[in-house]
Amino acid sequence: TSAARIALIKGDGIGIDVAEAAMQVAVAACQHVDAPALEFDEILAGADYFRDTGQDIEPGGEERAGQADAIFLGAIGLPAVRHPDGTEISPHLRLRDRYALYAGIRPVRAYPNAPQRLADPRAAGLDLIILRESTEGLFYSAAAHGRAIVVGDEEVRETLRITRKTTEKLHRFAFKLAEKRRKAGKRARLTCVDKANVFTSMAFFRKIFDEIAADHPDTEIGYNYVDAQALDLVRRPWEFDILVMENMFGDILSDLAGGLVGGMGMAACAEIGDETGLFQPAHGSAPDIMGQDKANPLAAILSAALMLDYLAEKTGNAAYGQAAQVIDSVIDAGFAANQLRPMEFGGDMGTRAVTATV
Amino acid sequence: TSAARIALIKGDGIGIDVAEAAMQVAVAACQHVDAPALEFDEILAGADYFRDTGQDIEPGGEERAGQADAIFLGAIGLPAVRHPDGTEISPHLRLRDRYALYAGIRPVRAYPNAPQRLADPRAAGLDLIILRESTEGLFYSAAAHGRAIVVGDEEVRETLRITRKTTEKLHRFAFKLAEKRRKAGKRARLTCVDKANVFTSMAFFRKIFDEIAADHPDTEIGYNYVDAQALDLVRRPWEFDILVMENMFGDILSDLAGGLVGGMGMAACAEIGDETGLFQPAHGSAPDIMGQDKANPLAAILSAALMLDYLAEKTGNAAYGQAAQVIDSVIDAGFAANQLRPMEFGGDMGTRAVTATV
Ligand SMILES: CC(C)[C@H](C(=O)O)[C@@H](O)C(=O)O
Ligand SMILES: CC(C)[C@H](C(=O)O)[C@@H](O)C(=O)O
Repeated sequence: TSAARIALIKGDGIGIDVAEAAMQVAVAACQHVDAPALEFDEILAGADYFRDTGQDIEPGGEERAGQADAIFLGAIGLPAVRHPDGTEISPHLRLRDRYALYAGIRPVRAYPNAPQRLADPRAAGLDLIILRESTEGLFYSAAAHGRAIVVGDEEVRETLRITRKTTEKLHRFAFKLAEKRRKAGKRARLTCVDKANVFTSMAFFRKIFDEIAADHPDTEIGYNYVDAQALDLVRRPWEFDILVMENMFGDILSDLAGGLVGGMGMAACAEIGDETGLFQPAHGSAPDIMGQDKANPLAAILSAALMLDYLAEKTGNAAYGQAAQVIDSVIDAGFAANQLRPMEFGGDMGTRAVTATV
Repeated sequence: TSAARIALIKGDGIGIDVAEAAMQVAVAACQHVDAPALEFDEILAGADYFRDTGQDIEPGGEERAGQADAIFLGAIGLPAVRHPDGTEISPHLRLRDRYALYAGIRPVRAYPNAPQRLADPRAAGLDLIILRESTEGLFYSAAAHGRAIVVGDEEVRETLRITRKTTEKLHRFAFKLAEKRRKAGKRARLTCVDKANVFTSMAFFRKIFDEIAADHPDTEIGYNYVDAQALDLVRRPWEFDILVMENMFGDILSDLAGGLVGGMGMAACAEIGDETGLFQPAHGSAPDIMGQDKANPLAAILSAALMLDYLAEKTGNAAYGQAAQVIDSVIDAGFAANQLRPMEFGGDMGTRAVTATV
C-alpha cells in the first residue's frame, strides 16, 4: 500500500516547532506499527509569509492542500501582522471554507498530573468533545471571506448564516460520533448547544437537530443554551459527553473547556469535511516563545493522532489507526507515570524533551 | 423629596418570588437609612401573560416602564411557551432596545462560604465586572426585533451590528466605571474583549476602544480575544477587573464568570441607558421550583442594590446610595458569618429565610 500524503503547513511562531515535533512522532508511530510511510508536501503560509510576500499562502498552495490525503497545520497568525482593517492573517479560514471542513472536533480530556482548574474531584474524569461547526455560523462573515458590510466609519455589519445543508451534515456527524463513542464503551450523551430562545437561526439549528435525532432513537440527547452551557462547563462538566454547536460558540466553549484541563497546550483539533480533513493544535502561534524549545507540543501530537485515525478510515489501512492508538496510549501512560512534565504546566520538559519522551 | 418610581415587572416562574423578595429588601433598606420611599408601578409581562393574552406585555406597559425612574424585572420566559419560530417570549429585549440600555453591568464577586468552583485559592478574591453591550451586536437580530432573514426551510441569516455611536458610549461608560472603581480603592484594569483577529466589526470595536482610551491615559488597559478570555476566566480570572465586550460575548462570558462564584443565584445585572436603567437578576425563571420558597433571591437583591445606587445618581439623593451600601454590607457580613446559606448552595435557607436574614 502506498504512503499517505500530508500537506504540511507549519505556519508561524511555535506552529513551526510543534508541527515538526508532531510529524516526527507521527512518522515514528507509523514505523512502530509498520504502517505505510507518510509523505509530506510542505506549503508556505502564514503571517510571516505574508509580511515577506504580500500573500498569505504560496501560489497554488490552497489547491495542493486539497490534493493531499490530509492537511496538518502548526499555527497561523502574528498579532503584529494585520490586514488594513485590523484583522489577522488567516488563510486557514479559507481552507475550512473551500474544503467545507464543517466538523470541527475538539476533544477535552483530563490527564493525571496535568493541571486541573476545578476544585471538584469529578473533574479528574473529564472526557468530552466539543463539535464546532467550522464553515458558517458567524464565521461566514470572517474578514477572510470579505463579507462584512462597512458603512463609512460609522457601522459594521456581519452575517451569521445557518444552512440546512451544513447543519444536517453536522448533526449527522455528531450522532455518528456519539455512536462510535458508545461502541468504545463510553457514555455518549449528545447535547445541542444553541441560543434557540433568542435567535431564529438557532431555533432552526435545533429543529434540524431534532429531525436527525429522530433517526437515532438510541442516542441520549439533551439541549442547552450557550450561556447556560458556559456556566455548566465550570459547574458540572463531567455530565457532558458531546456538545454540538455553531462556529463562534464552538470557538469560545472549546477554549473554555480546554482551559479546564490545563489550557491550550493539550487542545487538539480536527476539522473534517467530505473530501479531506485539516488537523491542528487549537492554540495560537505564541511568537514570544517560538524557537526556544518551550512550547508544549502535545496539542499538536494529539492532533496528529486524530489525523492518523482519519487516515485509517480514509485509506482503509487499519495500521494508521494503530499508530494513533500508540500515540494516545504513550501520552496516557506518560502522564500517569509523571514522565510528561511540559514547561507549560510548570514542568521541566521543553518541546524536544516532551517529543523525545513520547 | 419625592419617592422614586419603580416599574416592577415580576415576570415568570421564580422571577415573581425573587422580585418580591428584592423589593421587600429595597424598601426596608430605604426605611433604614431614611431614604424617600419607593413607589411601584407593576407591569404585567412574560410568557405566562403571553399564554393568557397573546401579548408579551400589557398594553401601554412598554411606555409606562420608560416613565419610571428605574425598571426592576424578576425573570421572563418559560421553555414551554414559544413563538412559532421556536424562540421564547422576551419583551425585555425590546425594552433594552427601546430605551437604549446599552451598558449591561454584571458584577462577579466571590463570597466566603459561597461555592468556589476553581481549585486555586486566589479565586477566593474574585471581584470583576463584565460590561456587556446590550442593544446591538448579534442581538440586533434577536427574534424579538424581527430582523432574521429566513430563506424557506433552507437557511437563516442574522445580522451582527456594531455602530460607532453605541460603541463610543459603551467604552466611555467602561472607562468611567474603571475610574469609579479605582477611586473606591480597587484595582481597575480595563480589558477590551473581542475577536478582532477575525471580524472587521470586532476590529472596529477595538479601534473605537483605542480612541476612547486615548482620552483616559491613567487607566490601565488590555486586550483579549473572546476565546482566549473564556480560557483565562478559568485559568487566571483574578487578573481581570473590568471586561468590556459585544452583546453575545457578554451573555456567554457573564454566565461563565458567574458560574465560577456559585452560579446564577448570585448574578446581579444592571442595564443602563441615557434615560433609564433596568435591573434584574441574570438568571432565568426556573419554573420547576417557582413558588416553593427554594429560589435564591440574592441575585435579585444584589440587583436591587445596583438599582438604588443608580437612583442615588439619578435623583441626586445620596440616601439611596446608603441603602445600597447597607444591602451590600449585610450580604458580605451574612456570608462571612455563615448566616446566609441559600438552598442553591446546599444550605438550609429558602427564599423567605434568606430575605428575612438580609
Ligand atoms: C486563529 C483563529 C482564526 C481561530 C478561529 O477562531 O477559528 C482559532 O481561534 C481557532 O479556534 O482555531
Ligand atoms: C433570556 C435571554 C433573552 C437573556 C439574554 O440572552 O440576554 C438572558 O440570557 C440574559 O443574559 O439576560
